[in-house]
Amino acid sequence: MSKIDPAVTAAALARQNTLTKPPGSLGRLEALAVWFASRQGNVIPARLQPAIVVFAADHGVAAEGVSAFPAEVTGQMVSNFVTGGAAINVLAREAGASLSIVDVGVAHDYPFPAQPAALLFRTPVAQGTRNLRREAAMSVAECTLAWNIGRETALEAIGRGKTLLIGGEMGIANTTAAACLTVALAGISADDAVGNGTGIDDAGRLHKVAVVADSVARARAAGASSARDWLAEVGGLEIAALAGFYTAAAHAGVPVVLDGFISSAAALVAVREDPAVANWLLASHCSHERGHRALLSALQLEPLVDLGLRLGEASGAALVLPLLQSALALHREMATFESAGISDGSL
Amino acid sequence: MSKIDPAVTAAALARQNTLTKPPGSLGRLEALAVWFASRQGNVIPARLQPAIVVFAADHGVAAEGVSAFPAEVTGQMVSNFVTGGAAINVLAREAGASLSIVDVGVAHDYPFPAQPAALLFRTPVAQGTRNLRREAAMSVAECTLAWNIGRETALEAIGRGKTLLIGGEMGIANTTAAACLTVALAGISADDAVGNGTGIDDAGRLHKVAVVADSVARARAAGASSARDWLAEVGGLEIAALAGFYTAAAHAGVPVVLDGFISSAAALVAVREDPAVANWLLASHCSHERGHRALLSALQLEPLVDLGLRLGEASGAALVLPLLQSALALHREMATFESAGISDGSL
Repeated sequence: MSKIDPAVTAAALARQNTLTKPPGSLGRLEALAVWFASRQGNVIPARLQPAIVVFAADHGVAAEGVSAFPAEVTGQMVSNFVTGGAAINVLAREAGASLSIVDVGVAHDYPFPAQPAALLFRTPVAQGTRNLRREAAMSVAECTLAWNIGRETALEAIGRGKTLLIGGEMGIANTTAAACLTVALAGISADDAVGNGTGIDDAGRLHKVAVVADSVARARAAGASSARDWLAEVGGLEIAALAGFYTAAAHAGVPVVLDGFISSAAALVAVREDPAVANWLLASHCSHERGHRALLSALQLEPLVDLGLRLGEASGAALVLPLLQSALALHREMATFESAGISDGSL
Repeated sequence: MSKIDPAVTAAALARQNTLTKPPGSLGRLEALAVWFASRQGNVIPARLQPAIVVFAADHGVAAEGVSAFPAEVTGQMVSNFVTGGAAINVLAREAGASLSIVDVGVAHDYPFPAQPAALLFRTPVAQGTRNLRREAAMSVAECTLAWNIGRETALEAIGRGKTLLIGGEMGIANTTAAACLTVALAGISADDAVGNGTGIDDAGRLHKVAVVADSVARARAAGASSARDWLAEVGGLEIAALAGFYTAAAHAGVPVVLDGFISSAAALVAVREDPAVANWLLASHCSHERGHRALLSALQLEPLVDLGLRLGEASGAALVLPLLQSALALHREMATFESAGISDGSL
């Protein structure tokens, strides 16, 4: 794990107070610049080189009727990512971030476009998870394989010079898995953890609450105890990959921006396995999905924006990238009171 | 005043529901895209061409000791804008917006850099305002001149093809003027309207509350009634210019993004003079400055972000430009369920 040097933090904070603005007047942008300075070990941090990776996998629990969309949509959306038509394609282009997609367990055949698709990596661990209401979603071996794919993906991006990692996900029914993890790890009720996902109605949500409560009870009876236990019992292949991705980024000293509910559930698994991972995480947004605020509280993270998003795919994290780049650009490029010949407030 | 076509609004909303995402899952970004569609009269609105204009002027009320910075800083900051060292320079570059500065009444000589400065327009109406605690800040004629400079500046930017206008301000002591307008037009107490500005302490804030209360009482006794009356009595030259700028943009059918406290006070003057102006305004952020939330409520606007900013200069508005561009890019570039061959949720 890379260390955070308090001398760099102090020097970055001191620099903020020399820039031509009232001290503190840039609010959270000042704290963000200092945060990146201390993590880059550089008083004036360099422009971020962001990599976005979307992990896709299916969920056996979709058979319980917990989603507004059929399970085939996971694969169909992978095709949409490859041809550039999804929200994350647009947002990655807008933010100047690289984008890749990792199929870590899509269950259904999906239309694979003929065009070059260097952005898609097909490394399925299984044909989706098993139905976590009835049995463990993954074997321990499957869970470890998926985790390691996430880790390798992070290390590969870092090897290409990426200095900020963003993980996203696609997987029909994965808010059910994330809600189970939220109940287990954040200690809230199924009713508080379960939202409307991609758009089930209120009756559908009550059914989903029952599925989540059942599943957590089943896993607890099966002896789930550690965060890794819970991940295998009630998680998902893409959630395991995300947890491995975040852990590897933190261990390599590379900051991470979290996306929404599922991304944050994966991050909480990673943090419960290694609390030092938390030092490398930023929260992008507060999702409209019901359980997200509890996950952010458990992670002790304050989101940057709250715009009612609930799409996943890393969309919320990609959306705030320009805010982060602006915070760093201000820190790097603004004049100081001295260089600009301006009276500071301390007359 | 340009009209908003309900058929365009309906068609833009319908398009949102065909894009490859659960309906509503992009939260406020969906509403923003539809908002711009209806204002551009174009179901798929074009990329925004933003112009940022910062109006600078001094305030006689600075003599009352209401600011943490000396009045000379207004002019010094104009120099800083010209040489590119201020926060708004950095943020305009990051957002790809044009930037110009209009000196509408800076009182003190300021170091004018030798280098080319096409971005600065010097059209001072007066050497700052008079001390609004003791007498009217401006004559009606001065107020109208400043308003018209704002109007002409907006029309000039629109003539250059700009499709989104952002106004900012620089003027030591201008939170005092804006607080007076907030008391007069939003109907809140001086204590609720007065914040710490650029960084006065709590004792300083109490003094500022007294100055604002006195000033509003003086102006009321002098017969101030309409928003234009109040603007001349307790406003500022840059605030009058901003009000004219916003009004002209709205009348030309060009959307405006507001910045913080002072910008919103100017917008409230404009809206009280012509309520239809409100249809063309977006709020960027909620400032840390105490009275801003009340102004936003009076304008019936919900800010996009809340990051503790309190700098002015149009910085908050510039910061959210990438969010707006992303909202429009998603609306324009995402695939539809039909084009991508994806099952929609309405099985």
